[in-house]
Amino acid sequence: MNGPRSATPLRIAITTGEPAGVGPELTAQALAQALSMHADAPSTQAGEAGASRWPGVQIVVIGDADLLAQRAARVGIDWRAIVARDDVSVEHRALAAPSVAGRLDAANGRYVLGLLDAAIDGALEGRYAALVTAPLQKSTINDAGVPFTGHTEYLAERTRTPRVVMMLAGTGERPLRVALATTHLPLRDVSAALTIESLVETLRIIDHDLRSAFGLASPRILVTGLNPHAGENGYLGREEIDVISPALDRARAAGIDARGPYPADTLFQPRYLRDADCVLAMFHDQGLPVLKYATFGEGINVTLGLPIVRTSVDHGTALDLAGTGRADAGSLLAAIDTAVTMARHRAQADAGHPAIPQPPLST
Amino acid sequence: MNGPRSATPLRIAITTGEPAGVGPELTAQALAQALSMHADAPSTQAGEAGASRWPGVQIVVIGDADLLAQRAARVGIDWRAIVARDDVSVEHRALAAPSVAGRLDAANGRYVLGLLDAAIDGALEGRYAALVTAPLQKSTINDAGVPFTGHTEYLAERTRTPRVVMMLAGTGERPLRVALATTHLPLRDVSAALTIESLVETLRIIDHDLRSAFGLASPRILVTGLNPHAGENGYLGREEIDVISPALDRARAAGIDARGPYPADTLFQPRYLRDADCVLAMFHDQGLPVLKYATFGEGINVTLGLPIVRTSVDHGTALDLAGTGRADAGSLLAAIDTAVTMARHRAQADAGHPAIPQPPLST
Repeated sequence: MNGPRSATPLRIAITTGEPAGVGPELTAQALAQALSMHADAPSTQAGEAGASRWPGVQIVVIGDADLLAQRAARVGIDWRAIVARDDVSVEHRALAAPSVAGRLDAANGRYVLGLLDAAIDGALEGRYAALVTAPLQKSTINDAGVPFTGHTEYLAERTRTPRVVMMLAGTGERPLRVALATTHLPLRDVSAALTIESLVETLRIIDHDLRSAFGLASPRILVTGLNPHAGENGYLGREEIDVISPALDRARAAGIDARGPYPADTLFQPRYLRDADCVLAMFHDQGLPVLKYATFGEGINVTLGLPIVRTSVDHGTALDLAGTGRADAGSLLAAIDTAVTMARHRAQADAGHPAIPQPPLST
Repeated sequence: MNGPRSATPLRIAITTGEPAGVGPELTAQALAQALSMHADAPSTQAGEAGASRWPGVQIVVIGDADLLAQRAARVGIDWRAIVARDDVSVEHRALAAPSVAGRLDAANGRYVLGLLDAAIDGALEGRYAALVTAPLQKSTINDAGVPFTGHTEYLAERTRTPRVVMMLAGTGERPLRVALATTHLPLRDVSAALTIESLVETLRIIDHDLRSAFGLASPRILVTGLNPHAGENGYLGREEIDVISPALDRARAAGIDARGPYPADTLFQPRYLRDADCVLAMFHDQGLPVLKYATFGEGINVTLGLPIVRTSVDHGTALDLAGTGRADAGSLLAAIDTAVTMARHRAQADAGHPAIPQPPLST
C-alpha cells in the first residue's frame, strides 16, 4: 500500500445513500465547501480549481451522475465544475427509477445497496483507502426484498468481521469519542449481552484502531459502569463486579490502558473527559445523548474493527429537508476529514513507519 | 403563609451534612460569596453588612456552631462576621464526637440525621420556607445502626409522601431540567419498574411543581423512550408502545403538555431542548450524564412532589477535598438560589396570587 506522501493519491469513496434523502445534495455541498467552489465564485477551469481541504486525496463519489447534478443544481451548486477537477470523479451507478426528493421508492432499494457494494468491493481490492457513507433508509432496502439491518452490520458481514465496534466522535484537536459495548438492543437485553469476553474483545479493537488508524501512541480508554453510580459496590447491581472489572483486569494485562468502571454521570464531565482518548459506554442511551449534545450535529460515526476504513455521518436521511439545501453538511465534511486521517495513518502503519501524527488538514 | 414581599423574611434552612466532608466549609464559602463578605474585605459591623444575594431572605444554618467556625477559618472565612448579620443565624446542634476533615466517624451518624430532622420538622411546622441540603455520607448513618438509603427517600418517608420525583437542573435564564422516571435501580430492573400509572403520576408531579414552585404557566415536558431510538416502532423494544405512549395519552388528557417518547440521543440536542421546560428521562444514566456535562458541576437536585421545598447540591461529600477550600461552592449557591425561587413561588401560590415570574435574584 502506498503511504500518504506517495505520488498515487489516497482515494476516498463516498456512497451517496438514499436518493430521496439529503445524501446527494450534502455530498455536493460538502465538496463545494471543501474545494472552495461555490456557485457564486468565479468559474474555474478543469484541473486548476481552488485548493482542496484534503491535499493529495482523490474523492470518488458513487451514485447516479444525473441525480447528483440535479440535486446539486437545486441547492445552487455547479456540479460540472466539481467533477471537472482532477481530484474528484464519479463512479456512476444508474438509478432504477427516477427519484423525487423526500419520497421513498422501494424500486431504488437495490440501487442503494449497489452503491455500498461498489464501495466495499473497491476498498477490499485496495482501490479505495476509505469509505464514507451518506445516510440510507433501511426500509427502502427491506421493502425491495433484501433483509438489511444497517450499514455497520452489513459491512461486518461483507468483510467477514466477527466483531465490530461503533464509535461516535466529535471533531477538533482532542475530540470526545464514545464507543459502545452494545448498540441496537432493547434495554432489557443489555445486561445479558455483556460478557467478559465481549468486553475484552471490544477494548482490544478500540485500542488497536486508535493506534493504527488514529495515530495515538498509547490510547487511554475510560469505561463506564452499567448501573447507576457504577453499581455502588454491588448495592445497585453486580455487573461491575462480575463482568466489567474482570474484563478491565484482562485488558490491562494485555497492555491496554483501560480504566473504570466509572459512574457515567461522573465520567462524562469535561474535567474527567480531558484525560480520555475514548469512553467505552455499556449501551446506546448511556453514551450517545452526551456525545450528540456535545457535538451539536457535527458528530461522526466510525466503525472500528473492520479491515477497511469506514466513517459516516451521525444523522439520518432527513427526508423533510431533501432538496431544500437547508441540511448542514458539517457532519459529512467531518466524516471525510476523519476518513482521510484514518486512511493516512493506516497507510503509514502498513508501510512499516511508526505512527506519527499527521500535519493538520488544510481548511 | 406570608408572601415574599411581607415584612417577615423567608427563612431558608441549610443542613450542613456530613461533618467530615465539604458541607460545612461550602456553607461558609457560599454565604461569604452571597453576602459579599470575604476575609479580605473590610470588616463589617453586625447588621450593616453588605447586600445579600437573596434580599428578604433569612438563612438558618443547621449544624455544630464550633465546627462551622473552625472549617470556615481553615478556608480563610471570618465566620463570626457572617453569623453577626441580621439575615443569618445558626441553629446549633452539637457533634457527638470531634470531626476531622476527610475522616468518617460513625459516632456522628445520628448527628447528621439530627440536622435533617431539625430541618424537616421546621419546614413542616412552617418555620422554614425551604430546605437546602449539603451532602451526607450514607455509610456514616448506616454504620451508626440507622437504616438510611438517601436524602430523597428519607424526606418522602418523613413527610408521608407516596411518590417523589428527582429532578436535576442547571442554572440561568432557561436551565436544562432533567427529571427521572426511575432513580437508583439496577439497570436490569428498570423496564419492570415502569408502569403507565407510575409515569402518569410522575408527569402529574412534575407539571404541578413546575407551575406552583417554578412559576411556569404552562410547562412543556419532553419525554424520552426507554430503548435505543425510542424502540424504533417496536423493533428495539415494546415499552414505548405498551407503557410510555399510553401514559403520555393519559397525561395529555389531564391537561399536561407532555410530548414523546423521543429517542434520547435526538432529544438531548440543544435545538430540541430549547422547547422544553423539563425532560423526563426513563432512568438514571439516560438523563444525568448529559445534564452533568452541560452544567459543569453547577447543577442542583430538586425533590418534586414533597409538601415542602427541598433542593440540594448534585455532588457528594468530596472527603478528599474537605478542609482544603478547593471545593467549589457553585452548586450550593445554585441550590440556595433555586430554593429561594421555589419558596417565593409557593408563597405566592399559597396566598392565592397568580404565579408571576419573580424579579431576578440580585447577585
